[in-house]
Amino acid sequence: MKRYMTLCASTAIFAALPLPAQETKTYPAPSEIVAAAKAEEWVAIAQSDLLVMDLAPLNNKPRRVVIQLMPAPFSQGWVGNIRKLAGAHWWDGTSINRVQDNYVVQWGDATEKKALPEGLAAVPESEYSTPLAAIPLDFFKGACVELNTRFSEDGKSARIAAFSLPVESMKDMDRGCQNRDAYGHLTANAKGFSFAYGARPTDREDIFSDIKAEVWPTHCYGMVGVGRNLSPDTGTGAELYTVIGHAPRHLDRNIALVGRVIEGIEHLSSLPRGTGALGFYEKEEERVPILSVRLGNAAKDVPVFEYLGTESESFAAYADARANRRDPFFNVPAGGADICNIPVPVRRKGK
Amino acid sequence: MKRYMTLCASTAIFAALPLPAQETKTYPAPSEIVAAAKAEEWVAIAQSDLLVMDLAPLNNKPRRVVIQLMPAPFSQGWVGNIRKLAGAHWWDGTSINRVQDNYVVQWGDATEKKALPEGLAAVPESEYSTPLAAIPLDFFKGACVELNTRFSEDGKSARIAAFSLPVESMKDMDRGCQNRDAYGHLTANAKGFSFAYGARPTDREDIFSDIKAEVWPTHCYGMVGVGRNLSPDTGTGAELYTVIGHAPRHLDRNIALVGRVIEGIEHLSSLPRGTGALGFYEKEEERVPILSVRLGNAAKDVPVFEYLGTESESFAAYADARANRRDPFFNVPAGGADICNIPVPVRRKGK
Repeated sequence: MKRYMTLCASTAIFAALPLPAQETKTYPAPSEIVAAAKAEEWVAIAQSDLLVMDLAPLNNKPRRVVIQLMPAPFSQGWVGNIRKLAGAHWWDGTSINRVQDNYVVQWGDATEKKALPEGLAAVPESEYSTPLAAIPLDFFKGACVELNTRFSEDGKSARIAAFSLPVESMKDMDRGCQNRDAYGHLTANAKGFSFAYGARPTDREDIFSDIKAEVWPTHCYGMVGVGRNLSPDTGTGAELYTVIGHAPRHLDRNIALVGRVIEGIEHLSSLPRGTGALGFYEKEEERVPILSVRLGNAAKDVPVFEYLGTESESFAAYADARANRRDPFFNVPAGGADICNIPVPVRRKGK
Repeated sequence: MKRYMTLCASTAIFAALPLPAQETKTYPAPSEIVAAAKAEEWVAIAQSDLLVMDLAPLNNKPRRVVIQLMPAPFSQGWVGNIRKLAGAHWWDGTSINRVQDNYVVQWGDATEKKALPEGLAAVPESEYSTPLAAIPLDFFKGACVELNTRFSEDGKSARIAAFSLPVESMKDMDRGCQNRDAYGHLTANAKGFSFAYGARPTDREDIFSDIKAEVWPTHCYGMVGVGRNLSPDTGTGAELYTVIGHAPRHLDRNIALVGRVIEGIEHLSSLPRGTGALGFYEKEEERVPILSVRLGNAAKDVPVFEYLGTESESFAAYADARANRRDPFFNVPAGGADICNIPVPVRRKGK
């Protein structure tokens, strides 16, 4: 029995213990690589690109959720609406109304009677994804997908071909590249987010040769999206949700993604699950009151957040380690990684 | 404003509304396909293959978690230990000690002093996966990967080649097949669980031609695994965890998977996150008491559970719908699905 007690320490699972002295090479865990990254490899997020949601306290403890808004050129119609809604203090007094296990937490106006501010955009469905040609050349710099500056005569074809080719080598894997994800798409990290690249299923034949290629953010854990009704409605941004389970990638290109929770997601993911259809709370008293939602530069006591630059050497090492765990706990490295298992590290500045 | 109120019904997101009358073809949602499955397409799970964990009530409401144990030939050394531990009432009075967001909930003996029952097996690491030749020919019947009964002279090679070839057609997709997952492996559902097929990364060249091929269960949401210390320890089964976030597939073949939560996972996934390292609770009073853990045939008031047979026509239609959502909410079908997004449907018998 004594043997078991030693071996089965409750803290043992996944713990990264130092290797014995006789080992000549050590492989750090992803968390150790991130902790050792140089200060200049981190990129500060502008406070105006944060959305700060304060929920009613629980057991006298504040509950703050911080969201990084999606960078241009993705989803900017909805992001603009969200800036207006936050500026109008529109969410103050609304609530979290839906918690569906292994799926989403959703918030907004449960009464459906609250007037929206003037001037919100009606964003077309075409904005769910972005044509490759509309993406700045340096957006994916350093990612497995490097936009090539060599243009063909029409300025398009060569650029697409250079976006990414199926990669096989471990060097490419080092950048968090995969051949394809489970959906047949290429994926990459950039600017704190993850993206997929491909064509419409009907255009799949043309994926590497045709202008139909497009890029879109992926529904990974913690991503924030825009609730909507049936097409052609795309939602305004007033009704938001975040993913609290396995990545529902089938929602990609069917709903707008506008951000990612970078701190405090536990205040959402640990809420009691709703017992109504789709996880909606059935009783008003189950809803969680939202005290306020503000842009980061309009909220109190917001620290500076920074993400690990996806073009940095440390990010490359981190992505490689996520795909090929060799730290002491692991026996068989996976040899690859789902893009949603390579979340871009985020921290409070310098912490 | 009025328009918005109509469009932005809080129940709108993902709701499956009937199509307008002028549409000639309707595509049911995955949930509708499952609801319409014939009674004979469901397969009852033996009560002796269930593990029933009763937690201390919360707000006077019982909290029961039901786990389906992993079928042979996978992980049977640990499953045998778990049967002994349940028979000895070993978990009674232990607790849930760790809740790490987007990762795992873990339970067992927080004191690390409780004596284990006699006769537990020390299972070797080789049992994390199973050689293809050791899997019954009908195990994956009807899945995208059909074990072929044609044998080569040595009884091995032909069988491996027939396990699955990379598939491209939608017919294959109908069975929940994918070309490869994000880890470069083929995947399939069977007996209520999901599995991957491949070789060690070092053996990758030989994946379709060599006996090194193996099959292993996948770390999807709700899967239950065995906590362990550093290799060569593989854990006894006394320390268990379940996945409550995006599938940590890098744990595949590094930890034993012994079951899957089929009811009551919300009692685990909605627990407050631990604030200690790795999500361990720092204070004793944070731990959630476990009243009892029993096999299903030794627990009270356990209904019969059944899973949708993975060889059934309804499962094929369900897997196709998961990969290609065409119900009214969706505009762009994904054209594929991560194996962890095709969970085998489970229900109380006939419900």
